[in-house]
Amino acid sequence: MTYRLHCFGQSGNAYKAALMLELCGLPWEPVFVDFFNGATREADYRSDVNVMGEVPVLETGGRRITQSGVILSHLARETGQFGGRDALEDEEILRWILFDNHKFTSYFATYRFLHSLAGKPMDPAVMAFLKGRVQAAYRILESRLASSPFAAGDRPTIADISLAGYVFYPAQESGIDIAAEYPAIDAWRGRIAALPRFALPYDLMPTARPA
Amino acid sequence: MTYRLHCFGQSGNAYKAALMLELCGLPWEPVFVDFFNGATREADYRSDVNVMGEVPVLETGGRRITQSGVILSHLARETGQFGGRDALEDEEILRWILFDNHKFTSYFATYRFLHSLAGKPMDPAVMAFLKGRVQAAYRILESRLASSPFAAGDRPTIADISLAGYVFYPAQESGIDIAAEYPAIDAWRGRIAALPRFALPYDLMPTARPA
Repeated sequence: MTYRLHCFGQSGNAYKAALMLELCGLPWEPVFVDFFNGATREADYRSDVNVMGEVPVLETGGRRITQSGVILSHLARETGQFGGRDALEDEEILRWILFDNHKFTSYFATYRFLHSLAGKPMDPAVMAFLKGRVQAAYRILESRLASSPFAAGDRPTIADISLAGYVFYPAQESGIDIAAEYPAIDAWRGRIAALPRFALPYDLMPTARPA
Repeated sequence: MTYRLHCFGQSGNAYKAALMLELCGLPWEPVFVDFFNGATREADYRSDVNVMGEVPVLETGGRRITQSGVILSHLARETGQFGGRDALEDEEILRWILFDNHKFTSYFATYRFLHSLAGKPMDPAVMAFLKGRVQAAYRILESRLASSPFAAGDRPTIADISLAGYVFYPAQESGIDIAAEYPAIDAWRGRIAALPRFALPYDLMPTARPA
């Protein structure tokens, strides 16, 4: 069975799912979602694919699974890879996935989108507000990774794959230079990039540049 | 054993945990966190209580559990209440908890805080930006609840308790009138308020007003 992943190259949330499929050595194919031409805003997409109007969506066994955190948990349970070994570790993993969705990925993704992908400049006050939120979230993960090799402990889990959604895109897309500003995050992404079968977002998912 | 919940009245994220404890009929006591005087920003709180610098934190069995979504999942598993009945339902519940953390609670909580609790006015462009995000998230839940009595289906789960974190605060705190603008969300919160042992946030958690 081949997994089908609705995605596009610039989406780090989709990359989380693509990277997990790849790291687990699973057979999968991308289904290109033309985000920059409004595909996820169309009524058909919302009613037939995802009421939340987002990628990624994973098709498997006749089901469509949405939300990157659900896809990661599903694949971890199915494959026995990158999940927790007990309830305690499952909770620690979920804790970091929730932090990622609430603050780490979310503010960065929005900031990066407005910085280089939205196609029109955003009010500087909004950019400054979002940048402050990005920095606060990045400092928390920086602090965690200064004393732990991976988010949930001594080995990579789906918490890391979630947090890694946006850290491998070129720095100029966001104007935030992780290598210069967050040394512990930089070292951690190096450990992730060293995992077998690792690949970068634009090498895994089809990309259409914004018009 | 009595659960101890680090919380303060204005925190809807803490309310999620308080409401769950209450709905499950569990013995618990609040531990007041003086958020408006900077308690969660202090180094001791970050190192000893929660590196993420947030409430809620639940003390139970010698452990401290953080992130409302983890606390809800933990209590659901422990009590057998408000959780999923199988892996499929667990995934649907997690999907809405992630949506809540990513978009529904997060933008509303930030908007409300800046609207009435921060103590100083925020740039109007930032408020307009956040309000647009709030509305997009609320429209998605409105659409879901127009065809389903609860977020994950026909009965209340921890997905609803998570999504309900901020919908019971007085409308003047956010300037957003759910009863007027989102009829399906309004009807849904009525169904939650009708559950046995339901109580409002300011009746469950100690409150200190911002200076």
